[in-house]
Amino acid sequence: MLSIPDLIQKKRDGGTLSDEDIRLFIQAVAKQHIQESQIGAMLMAIWMKGMVVTETMALTKEMMLSGDVMSWPEEWAGLVVDKHSTGGVGDKVSLVLAPALAACGCKVPMISGRGLSHTGGTLDKLESIPGYNINQPLHKFQSMLEAVGCFIVGQTETLVPADRVLYALRDATSTVDSLPLITGSILSKKGAESLNCLVLDVKFGRSALYKDKASATELAQSLVNAGNGLGISTGAVLSHMDAPIGRCVGNSVEVIESLETLKGNGPSDLMELVTTLGGVVLQMTGRVSSLSEGSTKIHESLTGGEALAKFQAMMEAQGVTNEDARLLCSAHADYYSVLRKAQHQTELQTDTDGVVLDIDGLVLAVVLHELGAGRTKAGEPINHSVGAELLVSLGQRVNKGSSWIRVHYESPALTSDQTSRLQNALTLGGPGDRPAQRSLIAEIMLPS
Amino acid sequence: MLSIPDLIQKKRDGGTLSDEDIRLFIQAVAKQHIQESQIGAMLMAIWMKGMVVTETMALTKEMMLSGDVMSWPEEWAGLVVDKHSTGGVGDKVSLVLAPALAACGCKVPMISGRGLSHTGGTLDKLESIPGYNINQPLHKFQSMLEAVGCFIVGQTETLVPADRVLYALRDATSTVDSLPLITGSILSKKGAESLNCLVLDVKFGRSALYKDKASATELAQSLVNAGNGLGISTGAVLSHMDAPIGRCVGNSVEVIESLETLKGNGPSDLMELVTTLGGVVLQMTGRVSSLSEGSTKIHESLTGGEALAKFQAMMEAQGVTNEDARLLCSAHADYYSVLRKAQHQTELQTDTDGVVLDIDGLVLAVVLHELGAGRTKAGEPINHSVGAELLVSLGQRVNKGSSWIRVHYESPALTSDQTSRLQNALTLGGPGDRPAQRSLIAEIMLPS
Repeated sequence: MLSIPDLIQKKRDGGTLSDEDIRLFIQAVAKQHIQESQIGAMLMAIWMKGMVVTETMALTKEMMLSGDVMSWPEEWAGLVVDKHSTGGVGDKVSLVLAPALAACGCKVPMISGRGLSHTGGTLDKLESIPGYNINQPLHKFQSMLEAVGCFIVGQTETLVPADRVLYALRDATSTVDSLPLITGSILSKKGAESLNCLVLDVKFGRSALYKDKASATELAQSLVNAGNGLGISTGAVLSHMDAPIGRCVGNSVEVIESLETLKGNGPSDLMELVTTLGGVVLQMTGRVSSLSEGSTKIHESLTGGEALAKFQAMMEAQGVTNEDARLLCSAHADYYSVLRKAQHQTELQTDTDGVVLDIDGLVLAVVLHELGAGRTKAGEPINHSVGAELLVSLGQRVNKGSSWIRVHYESPALTSDQTSRLQNALTLGGPGDRPAQRSLIAEIMLPS
Repeated sequence: MLSIPDLIQKKRDGGTLSDEDIRLFIQAVAKQHIQESQIGAMLMAIWMKGMVVTETMALTKEMMLSGDVMSWPEEWAGLVVDKHSTGGVGDKVSLVLAPALAACGCKVPMISGRGLSHTGGTLDKLESIPGYNINQPLHKFQSMLEAVGCFIVGQTETLVPADRVLYALRDATSTVDSLPLITGSILSKKGAESLNCLVLDVKFGRSALYKDKASATELAQSLVNAGNGLGISTGAVLSHMDAPIGRCVGNSVEVIESLETLKGNGPSDLMELVTTLGGVVLQMTGRVSSLSEGSTKIHESLTGGEALAKFQAMMEAQGVTNEDARLLCSAHADYYSVLRKAQHQTELQTDTDGVVLDIDGLVLAVVLHELGAGRTKAGEPINHSVGAELLVSLGQRVNKGSSWIRVHYESPALTSDQTSRLQNALTLGGPGDRPAQRSLIAEIMLPS
């Protein structure tokens, strides 16, 4: 059996770690039988030398096995599903898709994350709903799936402890953007959910972690390999992440947009993403015979109110009062009677006539981050009320002086620099111009 | 100013760290304003990507400046000298050379180290002398050099704290054999001694850290560059390290051999090494006009008794009783009236007639290590009495059944496996054979 320095040396020298080597390293990490300096050195060696497919699969599996692994009733076999996104701006897909899949008869044990840097986090969005408790104990998971069909919670102490240690150190050691480490982190958590099917939303573009399609494809392939290697039927959707998804960016404002989508009034780009991802999942479960049939079922759950009912039940199961849940889910809801509204709203106007060709999601996210909507370090508090609503959409003709964005913020006021950066995020074209991008979906990868 | 993760990323991506970058990193290490995982990641990035000469020089300088730097009286200018060896088997050069240089009028503030793995340590050897205290406070250094002209002590808390942190983590993180890290570690300590001249004994061969001359040359060049960059006139001697140096390997037994050498009875290979290294130092100080004149002066200090008197005074200054020091330094000394002798001595015999062609120093060191003479981890206790005396030397004709080695050990007895490995360490040849290696000195590099 190799020692920890031997393992580090093997990877340092470009060797391939055996399943046993990886088990030894991950168990040492989970049981804290290793110096932090050794974890840092191993992370850097992995970053530098990479891992072959078998190593990444072993890493993922050993991380998963470092903690509790959920188990589900036999009669759910084939029905337990989830979706994971690599993060973007305005990405509220989980809030809509989890209840939609539950409405279609699936069980969705969704363990989600918080926002970091410019990307938003599903847990932060949900926490803008008073009472919503993302900390749910493992022993309640099954009853929540029985009663509702879905939940969206945070990671518990006993799930994938090796990932918690590694994840916390990767940022500090500049080893975040490593394919095997990303794959292990994402898939080990999904493996611990004991899923039957998983769809990955791998985003690329200006507002995503990966800027180009080639690197996103490489990540998607690594994730699909590792997922299927764990025995989870795993597919991936490569999607553009340039302009924000939908019209709202922030936390409370994204909850409102999600609720509107669950009421059948969603923006077309968000609807496309939700129905495609949901269609892929339903097709993998075998409950439908084609992607388009699956997408249609998801669409119907949104227009028919079944997904909304699941979202309402999920809120109640996770601590929101029946009264608040009912108010939020009612037609023509007065959302701000439940959600907190920021002190100030300011609208910015277009300075020429034109067609909306582009809205830079990254610029919006960075300014909103400065205004308090995001966090720079894990654990920092955020302001759930800060956000922005786009009042125009791509391809729309606007006149000079039209309001195009409404910013929700607290004191102090927007600086002139922030205002100017926001204005520059909007690109208008001439009357004959059209936005380059017409669909968010770039590619669909299904398990063979 | 870059953050620590930025610095790690810069080196990870193969960039060249600026002087300011390196200062930031080393100060963070010394002040413990950095996570251990970050140190591990940076060490691995440096191991992988290396450092250019300017980076290594900055690293060395910043490590040196992380703690106290000695200062000496003006009238010593040009006289403050030291020697450093990269470690070997039977390497007792420091015990002989430091007093010899002091006898030639130099000031020798020698900060030495302990043994690790198969290599012996000067401090361990000296500690086999009852009363010898290697822990001397910084404020006594100058008075010891005034009174005696040399001391041999351990690192103090306030000298080069950054090196203590990095050195302790390099073994655990498999980043020991990195040219810039080795250079920084060795030279920063020598820099803190505020030397005028330094000679490096860079060993290569079966019993050394570096097995081949090419890599030893690379290390020597890096050390010479960094030393001269710090303003220390720095030279290097590349020396063979295959058979043990001299006839004794261990701690007490090496002290005895050193005392015999100081009394003019040294083995020829040890004498060659001491006079060459000492000659290089004296030449660099300008006190002699040639290497051979320097070597002759060192030789005379050993045959004339002046070096022995310095060693006696050094022992007394560092805690050995006058009585013990006098006994050890007397002609025909009964060494074991002062030093502790191991419980058992066993001699092994040759099994054929022949000429001694080779004695494998590494095998000897490993067996003695197992018997208690060495340590596997820093901080482990060792047995100073365990050791071996060679009763034959390279090139000597021996008859079958002659005793060729005397092993000093405690209970339990030598195992048959240990005996057999020791026997295999001896290579005998036919009557016309001669050992391949005739001189320990492979090359001498002087500052230009």
